[in-house]
Formats: sequence, structure tokens, C-alpha cells
Amino acid sequence: MESLKIGLLGFGTVGKGTYDVLKRNQEEIKRRAGRGIEVTRIAVRDVAKARAGLGDDAARVPVDADSAALVDDPNVDIVVETIGGTGIARELVLRAIRNGKHVVTANKALLAVHGSEIFEAASTRGVMVAFEAAVAGGVPIIKALREGLTANRIQWIAGIINGTTNFILSSMRERGVDFATALADAQRLGYAEADPTFDIEGVDAAHKVTIMSAIAFGVPVQFDRAHVEGISALNSIDIRYAEELGYRIKLLGIARRAASGIELRVHPTLIPSKRLIANVEGAMNAVVVQGDAVGSTLYYGKGAGAEPTASAVVADLVDVTRLHTADPHNRVPHLAFQPESLSDTPILPIDEITSSYYLRLRVADVTGVLANITRILADRDISIEALLQKESEEVGAAGRNETDIVLLTHETVEKNINDAIAKIEALDTVKGAVTRLRMESMN
Amino acid sequence: MESLKIGLLGFGTVGKGTYDVLKRNQEEIKRRAGRGIEVTRIAVRDVAKARAGLGDDAARVPVDADSAALVDDPNVDIVVETIGGTGIARELVLRAIRNGKHVVTANKALLAVHGSEIFEAASTRGVMVAFEAAVAGGVPIIKALREGLTANRIQWIAGIINGTTNFILSSMRERGVDFATALADAQRLGYAEADPTFDIEGVDAAHKVTIMSAIAFGVPVQFDRAHVEGISALNSIDIRYAEELGYRIKLLGIARRAASGIELRVHPTLIPSKRLIANVEGAMNAVVVQGDAVGSTLYYGKGAGAEPTASAVVADLVDVTRLHTADPHNRVPHLAFQPESLSDTPILPIDEITSSYYLRLRVADVTGVLANITRILADRDISIEALLQKESEEVGAAGRNETDIVLLTHETVEKNINDAIAKIEALDTVKGAVTRLRMESMN
Repeated sequence: MESLKIGLLGFGTVGKGTYDVLKRNQEEIKRRAGRGIEVTRIAVRDVAKARAGLGDDAARVPVDADSAALVDDPNVDIVVETIGGTGIARELVLRAIRNGKHVVTANKALLAVHGSEIFEAASTRGVMVAFEAAVAGGVPIIKALREGLTANRIQWIAGIINGTTNFILSSMRERGVDFATALADAQRLGYAEADPTFDIEGVDAAHKVTIMSAIAFGVPVQFDRAHVEGISALNSIDIRYAEELGYRIKLLGIARRAASGIELRVHPTLIPSKRLIANVEGAMNAVVVQGDAVGSTLYYGKGAGAEPTASAVVADLVDVTRLHTADPHNRVPHLAFQPESLSDTPILPIDEITSSYYLRLRVADVTGVLANITRILADRDISIEALLQKESEEVGAAGRNETDIVLLTHETVEKNINDAIAKIEALDTVKGAVTRLRMESMN
Repeated sequence: MESLKIGLLGFGTVGKGTYDVLKRNQEEIKRRAGRGIEVTRIAVRDVAKARAGLGDDAARVPVDADSAALVDDPNVDIVVETIGGTGIARELVLRAIRNGKHVVTANKALLAVHGSEIFEAASTRGVMVAFEAAVAGGVPIIKALREGLTANRIQWIAGIINGTTNFILSSMRERGVDFATALADAQRLGYAEADPTFDIEGVDAAHKVTIMSAIAFGVPVQFDRAHVEGISALNSIDIRYAEELGYRIKLLGIARRAASGIELRVHPTLIPSKRLIANVEGAMNAVVVQGDAVGSTLYYGKGAGAEPTASAVVADLVDVTRLHTADPHNRVPHLAFQPESLSDTPILPIDEITSSYYLRLRVADVTGVLANITRILADRDISIEALLQKESEEVGAAGRNETDIVLLTHETVEKNINDAIAKIEALDTVKGAVTRLRMESMN
């Protein structure tokens, strides 16, 4: 059977990785897919650089800067989009779909923001848009959610889905350094970009968990409803106190089915140290999925890099090869649920979510203040799970004694704890702002 | 669209679990699959018991003892086989295939032993035989290997794929009890069967790793070539010494691509404690897959039980619903590789495998014997990675000093270490047999 012809948009890390893996493992891939899969055309901005990257293959594979011509090329069966961003990538993907071509993309921002438009266009035209590489690199988490766990009512998903921030959090904990130092190290070692905003402020993780929430719960992608908090404000003392209490702090993307809607949030989170996911260190990714039949499952691996990402892109290409002959209305739906069966369950505002909390506060007079704090919490039905009181130290010229108190609460609604915190901060004996972090038992 | 009609063979743990999950989540499943999936006929030996288990549904779903009539029933679209074993199950599965029905099964023994016959019959007839539930319960590891990692040349797989033995090993380590006590506890708690042979002697794990090896490397299932060793001879002192050296002992199913063939083996294995898989405790399962592009990935969850297994069976049913319209020659092949592309790479005899080793020996005179032992190892190019020498203790009426020495070696071929052990055991100062365990760095 004739090889499937791939048009590659972009030849950066992911584009070149895809090219390399397809070429190196072409025989193995053909034994699996039943036919060859070949890159037959490449469109890039920097043609000379791509040609240099292709080496000897430059003589064989046409490279130019005309991406529109590529998606219009009748000799291209599948378009692989590795440009990134939501501008030109969106236009090219939609144009490829209109031309009846299947599309494979690693572009999480594009799908989290414009997913509904893209998937609708693809359903109408009867083509596949595959995006395993958009979440957790080479870990087949999209496939697990969309196909492997279809028997389940998914209850929640929680994932370490940004390697940069996990690398930073690991170094903060293991080496006791502060955020700025850990970030600088990550940048030096190539784990963080020169402008790390998207990673450290949680935006990248929010794109990914938005996509997973849609697949898990059968709702449209709604990035604008996600609550997004990064790790740049995280104090290393909280990592230490959490450790003393038996917890690790991870940046989690969480999607949870609650009684009145869906929680969709990214923030630093305390997790019990004994949980498997708490032990995912460095730039590695892991996603825990809780389903009503299967219970808790976990998927772990490299979340970024040329070859792990290419692994997912090429798996998608093999999937398209295997499944493109299936009746489009029967075939695996883009978001796991049939387009006409998507639900309008609302995404809850962050005030309405339910969580346990870690509170750190600086107090002047422990005995007096503890009674006041516990009363404020009890008035709001917030019970305390654990309390850590550090030895007091002398502060300032007057030699007053001050100390840190750390409280872990049981579950409550977020607006409740915020209300309690406002009251606690108003106490005379409490110095400065209360630090509040969310906590998940992952049970 | 009309519902797909399922004929259920057997109504034990897995059969009833499948029925329950299909019923409870029918709406969610229909939203995903695009059509309903309904059990319309059940065949069991104990009809009265099944009717009792069905409760009110007994009035609606026909139950009888005629399994042949079920697989011949033109109104049944998919046969779910939950009988187990390799006798009648094999006959019924083959008959269903001949009748042009798709088959879903959780029967690892059947596929590990008769897989080639069954898959060939299914390919010839153009039907799907799905078996996600055969390995690691609800964890979609078959899907990950067969579809999620198709870009990769798989290098090795190592899995904790038997919950009973992992539960026993966890209690031996955590509570310091011996094998017999841990087994008795596991039986009392329902984690081990009255006759636990298949689990504790590694046979169940060998069935599962045999299936995974075929999918990973594109070879036929060859259970008779697997090396199978269980945990019943494991001494709790080795668990303790391993712990002191930074290792945990797990019963692993290992399939590895070596230079001259494939290693296929089940045995107790030392793994560095810091590896994620070393921290998989109790009855949980986990599989690590190493691919050349993706690197190391891990899949974790419950490996047994009614609902986790049903989760996989129902996911297979949804898969069949989604994919049965695809061209059979294009569709996902049963063993990941196209039937005509299976390779005849041999499974290596256990003597030919490469591993690191843990050796424990009882010696009378440490100084003299250590020189002898290291020379025996050095003569065979086996280098020592670590050595643990326990304080000596007085033994016997004569009051001689004896002590345990534990050695960890670097990698060598198994016949090499066996040869060295024979020489070591022949030394005067070495008392009794040398305990030898295999060790994997999981890198």
C-alpha cells in the first residue's frame, strides 16, 4: 500500500523531532501501521535552517516558506502543525480541515482556546484532529482518557503537567533554595525559557488541564473559565513546613466534577508525600485520573522535549492511518463524547470550589491568638486537621516574641476560608497577611 | 442508532462487574460511543445464582446455561467471555469468531497460550478480539503499548502485574513477617485465593508479560518460552538486606529486547527504592515501558477486582463500537503489528539473559573468604557494585563465628553468575547454598 504523505508545518524542536523519529523507526512503524508514513513536504519560515537540519534528506524533501501551499497541496494526506501559538496556526489548521485533510498538532494553546471551532470544523468535514502531544508529551494520557477509561464516570483528574515548574519545585525542596534561584538554575539548564511566564504562572498547565477537563466530563474547552495560579509567589518556607507535616507542594492542574459544576484550576497544591504523584520529581509529568469503576490510575513520563513529543505526534499519525477508514460518525470523537452530547455543566468560579487548606500565619502571642483563630474557623464549620507551631523567636528592637503557626484544615468551600482569613488577619496579634495554599488528599 | 447487543459468557466477578458498570454508566457510555451498549443475553452454569445477582433485571435479560446457543445467536453482536481458563473458553471464543462476532475477553491464560490461533482466526474472519482487561485490570496498558507508543522501538517493559504477590511482598517488608504469614493474611483479607499457586508461583504474571512482549516487540505469544519464578521461596531476610542497600524486592514481569533475542521472565527482582515503581505497594499494579523516543513511562492502578476489570472490558466494548466500521486490514492489529509483519526473533533461554545480581552467602571466616569470592567473580569479569557485611555471630556448640555477606554485582550474563556461584559454594568457608536474586536498575 502507498505511504501516507505528511506535510510538516514548522521544523523546530517538535517538527524536527517528528521527522527524526518517523525516519529512524520507519520500518517498525510500517510493521505496525500496515503502510509507510513519510514526510513529503515541509513549510517553515527559516528555509535555510530547516535544510541544514535535514542534512542529506534536503535533496529529497521539498522545503519552502509557503505554508498555505502545503495545506492546499492535494498530495498531502495529513498536516502536522508544529508552529505553535493561536494566530497563523489556527488559520492553517482550519484551512487544512476545509481541504479535507487530517490534522495532528501538539498545540495546547490553540486547542484550549479555539478547540470548539476547530473540532466543529473537523466533525463537519469528517476529518480527524489528533492532539496526544498537547498534554504530557509522550505519555498517552489523551488516549487513556478518551478511549481507555470510557467505562467510567470520571470523578477528577489531577496532574503535574508542566515540567518547568516541577523542576523548580523539586530544586526548591531538595536544595532549599528560593524561587528566583531555582528559576535561574532551570533557565541555565534549559528547563525554563528566557521568558518563563507561561510556565511559571500556570498558563501552560491551564491549557492542558482545560483540554483534559473537556475529554473527561464531556464539556466544551473553556480556557477562559480556568482559575490560573503559578508558583512565582511561592515561599520556600512553605515547602519546608509542608514537608514537616508530611506533604509536598506541586503545581497541579485539577479538573473535578462537583455537585454544582466542574472545578477547573491550576495552583500550587499540598499532596501527602506518600502518594505516588508526590514523588514525581524534576521535569517529569504525571496525571492521576479517578474513575468510578477503575478507581485511581496514574500515567507518568517525560512531558516535553523533541523525542517524547514526537512520540505522541507519530502515534497520532499511526492512529489516523489505522482509523481514517472508519465511519466518521462512529470513530473516536475528538473530545471523547459525541459532539451532540456535550454538556453545558458550568465551570465553577474559584470561590465555589471545595478544598482543604494550609494556612501559615505570623503571631505575636500564641496562647491568646490560637483561641481566637480556632473560634473564627469553628464559626464557619471549618475543622482543623493538623497544627504546627514553631518555636517563638525575638523580633525587633522591643524584643517581642513572634512565631509561625501553620494550620491544615479539613475540606470547606473556598469563600468560607477566605472569609475566615479576613477575620484572622484583622486580629491584633496576627502580623501581616495569612499565607493560604490549597491541599488535596488525592484519595 | 440501535444499541449494540452483548452476549455475556459467565456471571462471576468480572461478568457481573461488567453488567453493573454498563448499566450504571449507560448514559455516559452512550454519550461517548454514540449508541447504547446493552447486555441482551447471559449464559452461565449456575442460572439461579445469576438470576439472583441480576435482581429485578432478571425479568428483562434472558439467562440460561446454553453458552453455545449464545455464541450462535444472530442477535448477539459482541461476545464477552468471562469464563476463564483455556478449555471451554477457547472453544466458545473460536466459535464466536467463526460466527463473525467480535469478542472481548479478560482471559490472559487463554491468550498467552492460544493467542496465535485466536488472533489468526479473528484476522481471517475480520473481527476484533479485544483484551485490555487481560493485563493490569483497568489500567489501559494494552492500549498504551499498542496505540499510544507506536512511534517507538520499545526497549523493555517491566511490570508489577500481580496484585496478590505485591500485597504479600508489601506486608513482608512493612511488617517484617515471613512469606507463610503474609500469604495467610492475604488469604484472610481476600487478596489471595485458597489455592494461590498461579499467583505466588508467577504463572499469572507470566501470562500477562507474555501478552505484553508480543505487543511490544511484534512476536507471537509464546508462554511456553517464558521463565517463571514466584515468591514462595523468598526469605524475609533478603527483603531486609535489600532495604539496607536501598532496594525493594518486587515480583516483576520483564520483557526486554537484547542483542540476540528477547528476554521474557518473571521473578523476584531488586529495584532501587527511589524508583517510582518501587513505591507501588499493596495490591496495586504498575508497568514501566521504555521506548527509544518517549523514554520511560509508567502506568499505575488497580490490577484486579470486579469494577477495575469491568472498566477495561467496557472500554473494549466502546472501542469495538467505535472502530468496527474501519477497514479490518487497516484497523488496530491485535498484537499491535500487522499479522504478516510478526518477527521470529527468538525468546532467549534464561541462561542467556543479562542482569545484575544480589548474592547472599553465609561464611565462616570473612577475611579469607572475601578474597576468594572476589577472585572467582573477577575471573568471570563480574564486578561488584556494593557489599554488605553483617556483624558476625557465634554459631553452634563449637562457638565458631559465622556471618552473612551480601554482594551486589554489575551486569553479567546469567550463566556466568551461575558458574561463579557454583565455585563459591564449593569454598570450605562458605556455608550452604548462595541465595541469588536478580536486580534491575530500571534506567
